[in-house]
Amino acid sequence: MVGGRVLPTDTTIQGARALRAEILGVGTELLLGQIANTNAQRISSALASIGVDVLWHTVVGDNLERIEAAVTTAHSRAEAVVMTGGLGPTPDDITAEAVANALRRPLDRDERLAATIRSIFEDLGRVMPEENLKQADLPRGATPIEPEGTAPGFYMEQAGSIVFALPGVPWEMEAMLVKTVLPVLQRRGGDSVTLSRHILVVGLGESHTHEKIKDLVAGQTNPTIAFLASGGQVRVRVTAKATSEQEALALIAPVEAGLRERLGASAVQGEGGPLGEILGQLLRARGSTVAAAESLTGGLLGAELSRAPGASDYFLGSLVCYSAESKREVAGLSEAVLGGPGPVSEQAARALAEAAARKYGADLGLSTTGVAGPDEHDGKPVGTIFVGAALGGRTEVRKVRGYGDRSNVRAIAVTAALDLGRRLLDQS
Amino acid sequence: MVGGRVLPTDTTIQGARALRAEILGVGTELLLGQIANTNAQRISSALASIGVDVLWHTVVGDNLERIEAAVTTAHSRAEAVVMTGGLGPTPDDITAEAVANALRRPLDRDERLAATIRSIFEDLGRVMPEENLKQADLPRGATPIEPEGTAPGFYMEQAGSIVFALPGVPWEMEAMLVKTVLPVLQRRGGDSVTLSRHILVVGLGESHTHEKIKDLVAGQTNPTIAFLASGGQVRVRVTAKATSEQEALALIAPVEAGLRERLGASAVQGEGGPLGEILGQLLRARGSTVAAAESLTGGLLGAELSRAPGASDYFLGSLVCYSAESKREVAGLSEAVLGGPGPVSEQAARALAEAAARKYGADLGLSTTGVAGPDEHDGKPVGTIFVGAALGGRTEVRKVRGYGDRSNVRAIAVTAALDLGRRLLDQS
Repeated sequence: MVGGRVLPTDTTIQGARALRAEILGVGTELLLGQIANTNAQRISSALASIGVDVLWHTVVGDNLERIEAAVTTAHSRAEAVVMTGGLGPTPDDITAEAVANALRRPLDRDERLAATIRSIFEDLGRVMPEENLKQADLPRGATPIEPEGTAPGFYMEQAGSIVFALPGVPWEMEAMLVKTVLPVLQRRGGDSVTLSRHILVVGLGESHTHEKIKDLVAGQTNPTIAFLASGGQVRVRVTAKATSEQEALALIAPVEAGLRERLGASAVQGEGGPLGEILGQLLRARGSTVAAAESLTGGLLGAELSRAPGASDYFLGSLVCYSAESKREVAGLSEAVLGGPGPVSEQAARALAEAAARKYGADLGLSTTGVAGPDEHDGKPVGTIFVGAALGGRTEVRKVRGYGDRSNVRAIAVTAALDLGRRLLDQS
Repeated sequence: MVGGRVLPTDTTIQGARALRAEILGVGTELLLGQIANTNAQRISSALASIGVDVLWHTVVGDNLERIEAAVTTAHSRAEAVVMTGGLGPTPDDITAEAVANALRRPLDRDERLAATIRSIFEDLGRVMPEENLKQADLPRGATPIEPEGTAPGFYMEQAGSIVFALPGVPWEMEAMLVKTVLPVLQRRGGDSVTLSRHILVVGLGESHTHEKIKDLVAGQTNPTIAFLASGGQVRVRVTAKATSEQEALALIAPVEAGLRERLGASAVQGEGGPLGEILGQLLRARGSTVAAAESLTGGLLGAELSRAPGASDYFLGSLVCYSAESKREVAGLSEAVLGGPGPVSEQAARALAEAAARKYGADLGLSTTGVAGPDEHDGKPVGTIFVGAALGGRTEVRKVRGYGDRSNVRAIAVTAALDLGRRLLDQS
């Protein structure tokens, strides 16, 4: 991964130092690779937004000794520790016990919490197993966090470091993060703010992006500039530390402008969110609509266009035509295209984009066709991608080379189609 | 999260102890929450498959001092350390330096690797920046791993612990994992094998699943039983440690049979892979095909049905009808349905499933409609989901309650539609 410079941790800006945080996941399912640690990602991004420096992620399994050791380490090096997982009612849910041991406190039953847990079961008309009451046992001095589902959380401060324990279920974690963790940390965050702006770069590739701006990257210390590539996109992140949001933005603005000048049309306007949402904002602003016709992406392009809340303002639908017959019967591709250049061709991408706009009555039609692999198809090698965009009588097609595995090739195709649509909208 | 018991780490089975491993990710983008640590997930799952115990995940940023400290800790407590990230050519790619410092070795240039890096650029017809040669600087005694993209990796052993350094780009990491890390570890893994089988449970919910089998869970030590819930599915994992794969499977078999007997038709046959692939295998075995018509899922159902290599054997396509007009115009829903019960109704799910089968000429038609949120729609609350499945003149519809955020509601709808299709196929 090409990376930019990163600020040293202890950057002191006018006397203010950002809180240092560690995110500690508990769960053997993470260590067995059954799920990705998306909780750590979500919490990190939320803490960054309020100027807290996340310096470590740690994961341990449902093992008392190792959770305890991890809490001890985290508590000694970070001023905020956000734990997830291990708060359920079963015998291997031992986060509260481990925190109590690490901080040398007994467990006390919180009677109000016990009553809440009882009432959750009563409301569901179910008998509560007695073992569930262990969820009301918290380290002495902890502040309980009301359950969102059935598991309560808690937080407690000791020796200048605050430990939060949240459930592992993502939506329960999310609610407690927003309602409790962020407000509590914001109140003690001091004056330091870390702010990032992202420039989304599409259609240029990671090394070309780097070459175009590497002298700018080399000269920077605050803000810093870093790169992140995936699925055919590069995100350039500009991060400033300052004593206020305004000051941070003022540091970022000239650097961002310089980068955008170099990157030209490959740099997407706006704050670099998901490309599907950016395209959606462009469409919403014009009162326009979009539809798609997809082959190798199998529905991923439609899923991306419908991801944002309110997507029904602009997204009408997508014709997923995976088989040759469906390209003919459902999307109406002609025999001249299918029997001539074939389903993986510039002509097919063109016809699919136009069919999408026509069938749905959409202003913009997008399309994908290609070979996701692992085997070649229609005489074309794995990674061959054609995407199309049709807008008001004009249709553009682009050939893109996909790389990596099947899922990466599909992600690159989605990115390329969305980007082609964006460029066409920008030009019209 | 409801969890089962987990084996203590140091379970000694006939003298063999599994290797203990730590996965150490390097990258500020992970700490800022810009990406999830999917590398750790992938490596964990691969190591579990060869009987290596992953006991810790750690992530640190591009900071020499903290990487060095993390390597020192990992090297002291684990016999295998798999690092990802920080191997690129820019100044903040410092993994090799940090490993050299932690293990107290100098960096030496590997001239053969330097020649390889030069030739990669020559093959691309590009001038190599001199700074790229730093990628050939490895800790003394390290074995280089040939680059898959442009970044080489390496591994080295010291004091009974082996450290692997792989690039952070997922497909480059994956190739080195498979070609180098797994074979090297398998050669020193001793005789211990950890094997898991998964039972995928759909349509029953986490707490009901737990209630049905909790007495079986409580009595187990080897194999152990654990639960994992997400997106409307519960995975029950049965994990055995033994001296051979055969022995592990023999330990698992009676336990799995007992669980399946309790869980009945809610337990999916087979090894519990992604539900879309399981449905695909059922279809392939019968020589049958599937198509979909989707509303709230926006293409996710099609994406899931087309995810596996070879999906074109059974998946024909999907009509994504996000707008009311497209449900009428593209899927052919009648005014009687759209103006009567409305687009979010049992009748609409029925009509969509039948339209999918008809339009694509598929044996099985699946459908989703509902309210993903955040706002109610068509007078129905967020989380209302109807899914349909049509097979050979018979159509079934199921109402499901989605919960959590927009993306979770959409995932639950995909799961419910795939499960309804599976049940219909099983019964016919």
